Amino acid sequence: MIRTELLKQIEFIKEIDKIKYIQRRTKLFNSDRNENDAEHSWHLAMMAIVLSQYSDAEIDLLKVIKMVLMHDIVEIDAGDTFIYDQNKNHDNTEEELKAAKRIFGLLPEKQAAEFIEIWKEFETGTSNEAKFAKALDRLEPLLQNTSNNGGTWKEFGVKYQAVYEKKKTIKGGSTELWDYAEQLINDSVVKGILEK
Amino acid sequence: MIRTELLKQIEFIKEIDKIKYIQRRTKLFNSDRNENDAEHSWHLAMMAIVLSQYSDAEIDLLKVIKMVLMHDIVEIDAGDTFIYDQNKNHDNTEEELKAAKRIFGLLPEKQAAEFIEIWKEFETGTSNEAKFAKALDRLEPLLQNTSNNGGTWKEFGVKYQAVYEKKKTIKGGSTELWDYAEQLINDSVVKGILEK
Repeated sequence: MIRTELLKQIEFIKEIDKIKYIQRRTKLFNSDRNENDAEHSWHLAMMAIVLSQYSDAEIDLLKVIKMVLMHDIVEIDAGDTFIYDQNKNHDNTEEELKAAKRIFGLLPEKQAAEFIEIWKEFETGTSNEAKFAKALDRLEPLLQNTSNNGGTWKEFGVKYQAVYEKKKTIKGGSTELWDYAEQLINDSVVKGILEK
Repeated sequence: MIRTELLKQIEFIKEIDKIKYIQRRTKLFNSDRNENDAEHSWHLAMMAIVLSQYSDAEIDLLKVIKMVLMHDIVEIDAGDTFIYDQNKNHDNTEEELKAAKRIFGLLPEKQAAEFIEIWKEFETGTSNEAKFAKALDRLEPLLQNTSNNGGTWKEFGVKYQAVYEKKKTIKGGSTELWDYAEQLINDSVVKGILEK
């Protein structure tokens, strides 16, 4: 007899496959192919492992990894919102909460509650783990855009001040990664791939 | 001053982006689109989190996640080998070891050594964590093929006995997941999507 609990978990595992079809605006490194949410989440998890030493605060690395692996699952229902979109709020929407409840709700009750908490903690962004996870989420597209001669900045006319404001989130998780990121942003202006 | 250590880590983070171009034979769920290694690795990491309770032995979940996130990075140089390929050994090739040394070798020395160890431990497959990680690596394509009316089994004429032999690895990590997998394989024969 296969227990109901496992069957629910298998349903969840099948459902989240859909994240592989959610396209981000950002392109892969040195590429014109859009990144999807599964690829993005994998990359953030690897970055968490590689860069954990730079977190300003003590962090539970396993929790950071869970956050970055799961943070975009809600986009299966709610879709990806471009971070520089001025008409639509990127985070904490009712639509995303509804999506979290439906998708994580496929899991056995206790696990569903746990996953929703992890997702909310990331969205709220105040715990040490969430701050570091959010820093990584801002750093990856910065690395991509600088490798793509400005990438989405050029494509959508995003300027220095807007980039600087969004990327400052990195400082909340890691002073050292922010020093690096700030230098990358400033260098991008000098190189002419980011307009001041 | 950005320290050399961080610059090496950033180089590694850029290099592993290439895993997103490595196509597997297996298709996404209910789909005819091939899965790539980044998507596959993300899915295994999520499965590790969701299914960890089914490991027969005590496991360090963080280590399992590291294993599944990293296990295919060597394919950036060595390429993906189809598991049912009878002419080419899937694992532990010289080519893969060379790839591990080159790619993980981009990292600072201590971290490079640590990552190579994790990758070798997965490949060797004898630790509790490696057994569970390998069970997940066998389970995901089984779920995919059964959702795709036989998928790669039909496409490449793979029969029951070969599937059963490969999937038995699941038993090494989890009796309960194996019970489920064995039933799925047998049901596939009944449904006519796997030839006996």
